[in-house]
Amino acid sequence: MAIVLGPNQYGKAEVRVVAVDRTTARHTLVDLNVSCALRGDFDAAFTDGDNSHVLTTDTQKNTVFAFARDGIGTPEEFGLRLARHFVGTSEWVTGARIAVESYGWDRLSVGGTPHDHAFRRSGGEVRTAVVTVDGEDAHVVAGLSDLVVLKSTGSEFWGYPVDRYTTLPETRDRILATAVTARWRYTSAELDFAGVYDGVRTTMLETFASVHSLALQQTQFAMGTAVLERHPEVAEVRMSMPNRHHFLQDLSAFGLDNTLDGPGVVYHADDRPYGLIEGSVLRDDVPAAEVAWQGTPGFC
Amino acid sequence: MAIVLGPNQYGKAEVRVVAVDRTTARHTLVDLNVSCALRGDFDAAFTDGDNSHVLTTDTQKNTVFAFARDGIGTPEEFGLRLARHFVGTSEWVTGARIAVESYGWDRLSVGGTPHDHAFRRSGGEVRTAVVTVDGEDAHVVAGLSDLVVLKSTGSEFWGYPVDRYTTLPETRDRILATAVTARWRYTSAELDFAGVYDGVRTTMLETFASVHSLALQQTQFAMGTAVLERHPEVAEVRMSMPNRHHFLQDLSAFGLDNTLDGPGVVYHADDRPYGLIEGSVLRDDVPAAEVAWQGTPGFC
Amino acid sequence: MAIVLGPNQYGKAEVRVVAVDRTTARHTLVDLNVSCALRGDFDAAFTDGDNSHVLTTDTQKNTVFAFARDGIGTPEEFGLRLARHFVGTSEWVTGARIAVESYGWDRLSVGGTPHDHAFRRSGGEVRTAVVTVDGEDAHVVAGLSDLVVLKSTGSEFWGYPVDRYTTLPETRDRILATAVTARWRYTSAELDFAGVYDGVRTTMLETFASVHSLALQQTQFAMGTAVLERHPEVAEVRMSMPNRHHFLQDLSAFGLDNTLDGPGVVYHADDRPYGLIEGSVLRDDVPAAEVAWQGTPGFC
Amino acid sequence: MAIVLGPNQYGKAEVRVVAVDRTTARHTLVDLNVSCALRGDFDAAFTDGDNSHVLTTDTQKNTVFAFARDGIGTPEEFGLRLARHFVGTSEWVTGARIAVESYGWDRLSVGGTPHDHAFRRSGGEVRTAVVTVDGEDAHVVAGLSDLVVLKSTGSEFWGYPVDRYTTLPETRDRILATAVTARWRYTSAELDFAGVYDGVRTTMLETFASVHSLALQQTQFAMGTAVLERHPEVAEVRMSMPNRHHFLQDLSAFGLDNTLDGPGVVYHADDRPYGLIEGSVLRDDVPAAEVAWQGTPGFC
Repeated sequence: MAIVLGPNQYGKAEVRVVAVDRTTARHTLVDLNVSCALRGDFDAAFTDGDNSHVLTTDTQKNTVFAFARDGIGTPEEFGLRLARHFVGTSEWVTGARIAVESYGWDRLSVGGTPHDHAFRRSGGEVRTAVVTVDGEDAHVVAGLSDLVVLKSTGSEFWGYPVDRYTTLPETRDRILATAVTARWRYTSAELDFAGVYDGVRTTMLETFASVHSLALQQTQFAMGTAVLERHPEVAEVRMSMPNRHHFLQDLSAFGLDNTLDGPGVVYHADDRPYGLIEGSVLRDDVPAAEVAWQGTPGFC
Repeated sequence: MAIVLGPNQYGKAEVRVVAVDRTTARHTLVDLNVSCALRGDFDAAFTDGDNSHVLTTDTQKNTVFAFARDGIGTPEEFGLRLARHFVGTSEWVTGARIAVESYGWDRLSVGGTPHDHAFRRSGGEVRTAVVTVDGEDAHVVAGLSDLVVLKSTGSEFWGYPVDRYTTLPETRDRILATAVTARWRYTSAELDFAGVYDGVRTTMLETFASVHSLALQQTQFAMGTAVLERHPEVAEVRMSMPNRHHFLQDLSAFGLDNTLDGPGVVYHADDRPYGLIEGSVLRDDVPAAEVAWQGTPGFC
Repeated sequence: MAIVLGPNQYGKAEVRVVAVDRTTARHTLVDLNVSCALRGDFDAAFTDGDNSHVLTTDTQKNTVFAFARDGIGTPEEFGLRLARHFVGTSEWVTGARIAVESYGWDRLSVGGTPHDHAFRRSGGEVRTAVVTVDGEDAHVVAGLSDLVVLKSTGSEFWGYPVDRYTTLPETRDRILATAVTARWRYTSAELDFAGVYDGVRTTMLETFASVHSLALQQTQFAMGTAVLERHPEVAEVRMSMPNRHHFLQDLSAFGLDNTLDGPGVVYHADDRPYGLIEGSVLRDDVPAAEVAWQGTPGFC
Repeated sequence: MAIVLGPNQYGKAEVRVVAVDRTTARHTLVDLNVSCALRGDFDAAFTDGDNSHVLTTDTQKNTVFAFARDGIGTPEEFGLRLARHFVGTSEWVTGARIAVESYGWDRLSVGGTPHDHAFRRSGGEVRTAVVTVDGEDAHVVAGLSDLVVLKSTGSEFWGYPVDRYTTLPETRDRILATAVTARWRYTSAELDFAGVYDGVRTTMLETFASVHSLALQQTQFAMGTAVLERHPEVAEVRMSMPNRHHFLQDLSAFGLDNTLDGPGVVYHADDRPYGLIEGSVLRDDVPAAEVAWQGTPGFC
């Protein structure tokens, strides 16, 4: 028996790089949070404190800034450039994972005219990308997080098993609310990443709105299925969706009606605990690629 | 000499109430976080544990939900209803402060058609309201927080005093970014609160965009002044604006230019420390009302 | 009528300075988060973007680091040094407010022997200090935040008024839990700040534990009163204490008893909403000093 | 080609259960945050909204509270009870994952005497446990998160490769600080979980303090190795350790020395970006058990 080093990676996390395109008076902005991780033969650093294979995390940070000098493009493209660079730096760096969060900015208007260089940070969801280069292979997982959506009706929940600990009443009408975190793997590293992202996001929102929901599971699966149906470049979708409970408030003690029979107006938005539905939708003819997901939190 | 009870207040904080208007198939949504605080003669609770004057915080919570039964309206109106109710509950409750955060929801569209009952939570700023009823008087302070804005040029900073500890170089061009928290006091409790809010917000955004900035102080004062000029119903504006530093990254060690002479592309968005500019703009003929601001954090 | 600049202040917030005393092999550590704010005549910066009076926030940051070179001492002493320095830099800086958070570190032991230079960050409360220099006057407000305490019995709540919206049952036994934020103003700027801090903290904890509570208000007032009784150098105490509700869980639906009659084992710790009790205790023969509290959040 | 449901799980997250042992006047407290997830055949819920296999997350929550009625014991034992119960509820629930955070409470003292029922929440790290029951197998992964430690000397960093983007100077003396998140898998589900936890935690702290560090990787591997050497019941250890940079502040512009030659007093604690070192240490004769780690974030 021996005690040995197992899987490991290291890098610089959360490099906050902003690139401004000033080539015309009408500026544009890319705002990213970039985390790098390198994989390969760094054993001596762990076992002996020998750093001769360790491209420092400070160097990784510098590289992020230097590569932004020529513009960033999409998060996916920037991740591919960085990951391929790191894997090419030496024989012992055999893999790299670049995780990116991208924050949107909307152009401000003054008197109805879009302004050249003033912006408001878009709220709502964060666009994400995880690029993994593993030897010769490159994998791209796009995504979004914290897309908060709600249906004020069109959601039921009934027909579940009842055991000794079940007290929940069935309902034919409830508020359904969730914060979507979704990640989808592309079949290619050569895509119109911006265009496909917009398409996937729209597909998810439209499906969430359209499906008459009998279970959050059903809504989730429908969202993933619609993405795969409309976007052949997507191999699989993984989603994590908390059920953000909105409980109809019982006001009968105050002589007030507030049931679904009428009028069903007042709800309490609860923080914890919450249901959590995690699932995935796949094409059954696309090879799996677990390395593309390695180190990505929040998915079963 | 004696040890005595000083100023105090108590209440239920962060009641998360959501009201759905189902009167037509096209639902609307109000989503609030309500915090109540009562003021008056509660001395015996502090000194003797005698609760005979203490309208419980649980009752305050119930009241928030019950009052939502007939609809909420604007945050300001809901706060006024609640505050006046609490002050009217007994002779010893002489004041009430209702602080509200309001979260926006945008209607989703499917195939270009707005959906009746599906929504996406608007990101970006939170709308706030603080209503204070003090005996016969009612004060309304509207506001917003976390409105993140950025100018990629049109901002200078120079001409400041230099002492032993000054190392900052002057600049004729920098990124200016901030997260606006603003609160403004109305001269009346009878207003089109929704309309004025939209107007104030637009005024702030347009002024931020339009002013060629020599100092964040100047931008802030211009924003406040513009609000007072355009909105006679506003008595004063208080603003807190962190200077979210974006530092031009020096890439010269890598043989890359990245100065403002050319091309000035790559910036590092820094977290801490940050400058913080807090200021206020007033009409000099409107009486002060410090009670309207009591217990509101983040303002000098 | 004119629109004019009102109260304002500006400075560098959240400078994270750590000082290591290496004068002997047994190191010691001071770890602070320092926020500076200057007050005075900065009108031209607001009205005209004229920065000739604006000691830059970058200079303020540099000053914090430079002043740490000779050691930091207590947060209160460091704040006094900085505030007096800033007020002395020019005729137009007439006031300074230095707010400090101090994070504790416990020395690690190896095999029972305290280590010379290895530490673990103490969890729990943060020690705070707010120093205000206003012309010739210096005010020191010490404090702590997030000191989370709980009594599993020895707390009752009954005797409160009942109105239309009251549903809460009275109880003779409940869990009482809170996160204490307290700030206390000293009568002097020349004190053994470390020693008094420890004394005040111990007094608060012992009083929380000892008082049989009929209301959180009563517990709070007793804590403040005990501090004033034992510590003549304290002029007043202000406290903000959320009531972190722990609800006895009803298990009767599962054929299980869980009432206070027996055995009262299982509780649900709830996040929101929460009660919030804010109060103050004073000596009636000490002059008020509102400027000492200006800009300090969370107190009525 | 077909679009199919992939891996999935669902459950109730973040049930905040507190159990008080009142069997003697000297109370004790267990304070947990419990998240359940079930695995098995829930396909119809996803594909058709058919909930006949879906033990509701509300029922899962009720079960957590009901099971706490007889006391909780250690987080690991409580997780095992719950996971085995859920897997036994039906033929289609084939696996369960119970993730627990445990918050410590220290008994308060009054005048040197430990109090029977008054507590202060321990700060610092959170104890964690992840129990996975997969058919007949039970896996237990214990852990801790946010154990923040620092060495003010005894850390070097040099000997790393230099490329075009490397600017970091080598150092023979630096501050080393990190927040340890560690998880370790046990070879058995029948252990003195409390005792082993204390032993592992002590081993980690003592090793962090003792190792003269040439790389954070080296410190991490030494910590994991020491755990495996001293604790035969541990099969593997996975660790995630951010390098919380403390940069020596250059004060030379102010005529002040602050180098490691003397005196090296003043540091800036930086937030982002940070290095992140993730690694694992294994016994090479223990079978892997990836299912034990499924759904656990933050590990490569």
